[in-house]
Amino acid sequence: MPRTRVHNMLISLDGYAAGEQVTFDAPIGGADRLFDWFDGRAIHGVDQADDPITLDRALTSMWGQGIGAEIMGRRKFGPQTGDWPDDGWRGWWGEEPPFHTPVFVMSHHPQATMEFSDGTSFHFVDGTPQEVLDLAQRAAGDLDVRIGGGPSTLRQFLQADLVDFMHLAIVPITLGRGVRLWEGLRGIEGRFTVETVVSPSGLTHQFWNKNN
Amino acid sequence: MPRTRVHNMLISLDGYAAGEQVTFDAPIGGADRLFDWFDGRAIHGVDQADDPITLDRALTSMWGQGIGAEIMGRRKFGPQTGDWPDDGWRGWWGEEPPFHTPVFVMSHHPQATMEFSDGTSFHFVDGTPQEVLDLAQRAAGDLDVRIGGGPSTLRQFLQADLVDFMHLAIVPITLGRGVRLWEGLRGIEGRFTVETVVSPSGLTHQFWNKNN
Repeated sequence: MPRTRVHNMLISLDGYAAGEQVTFDAPIGGADRLFDWFDGRAIHGVDQADDPITLDRALTSMWGQGIGAEIMGRRKFGPQTGDWPDDGWRGWWGEEPPFHTPVFVMSHHPQATMEFSDGTSFHFVDGTPQEVLDLAQRAAGDLDVRIGGGPSTLRQFLQADLVDFMHLAIVPITLGRGVRLWEGLRGIEGRFTVETVVSPSGLTHQFWNKNN
Repeated sequence: MPRTRVHNMLISLDGYAAGEQVTFDAPIGGADRLFDWFDGRAIHGVDQADDPITLDRALTSMWGQGIGAEIMGRRKFGPQTGDWPDDGWRGWWGEEPPFHTPVFVMSHHPQATMEFSDGTSFHFVDGTPQEVLDLAQRAAGDLDVRIGGGPSTLRQFLQADLVDFMHLAIVPITLGRGVRLWEGLRGIEGRFTVETVVSPSGLTHQFWNKNN
């Protein structure tokens, strides 16, 4: 059975997984320390990085395994709000987005699909988490769907009980402000079996598998 | 730079990584407890198993990432010794070997190459570890080469200092007899940086990255 998966969700000790204000100059909205701390990702496979293969890199390499589509929130795609301006924006990644699959961007404001030569396409869709997941699953076929974040998008899918697997990486810093992943999710651990692993780097990795 | 990698090398607390006598009935030569203990492999990706995605499965999923060829010892291919009999043997895996790449089987006794529809081919080659690695690297192109074992084959490549990365999984059992991985390798840890991670399952995972 295809799963709905979350990978490499970085979160601070005080529960923040993104910054508050996303702008063109600050794509991570002031939560840069979360991403700067952990520069060891190998999302396209451990063979794709020349760096040593550490636990952290090994775990981030799950990101693309058997994924046929991603769902993301609008702020992961760009900083614009309201109607989409005619500004030629094609996402933070320029002409080489790393996804290589259809990506469903949740937005109340429609715009035309964007295609890239590497297999990535951005589809702008309005709907409930279940409706958007249905679209993504149809696009993914036999493969899994990844919920790509940010945290407020992920939170909607967790509230709707649509997540089968989640890999969290707890970064040993306090951010003090930002977007809280766990808001409104009191007791959610009861729906999952949680495995916790400490990395020599200082990260704590968690594997959340939904109970049957 | 392509690497020479080792994955999912299971080893007992007392240092054994295979049994002594490999026969048609006992492919693992009496070290079955090593493999039985750890049935959580997901070598073709975490999406390929319906089981929960645990640390152990996440780590075994590195096995095929960016691998373009494997090298294995003769006993990993079959229990025969001496000249190859005309018995139609095509490996322990029947018509569906899991490799999906060229595989170089080290043997002093030549026989014709075997091809499979899934991309696997077995090439029987005689030579030093460096000579066989050269062949495998040519076949792999830009991709990495995996040393697939068993332990005596791996030991030859370690002695010749040809291994760039090794993922060991130490199984919390004592076998008392079998093939020792570490024989003749006193002080080898000095050539590597070793990261050790304890799994909630009871396994201890190690990541050996060769020092520059």
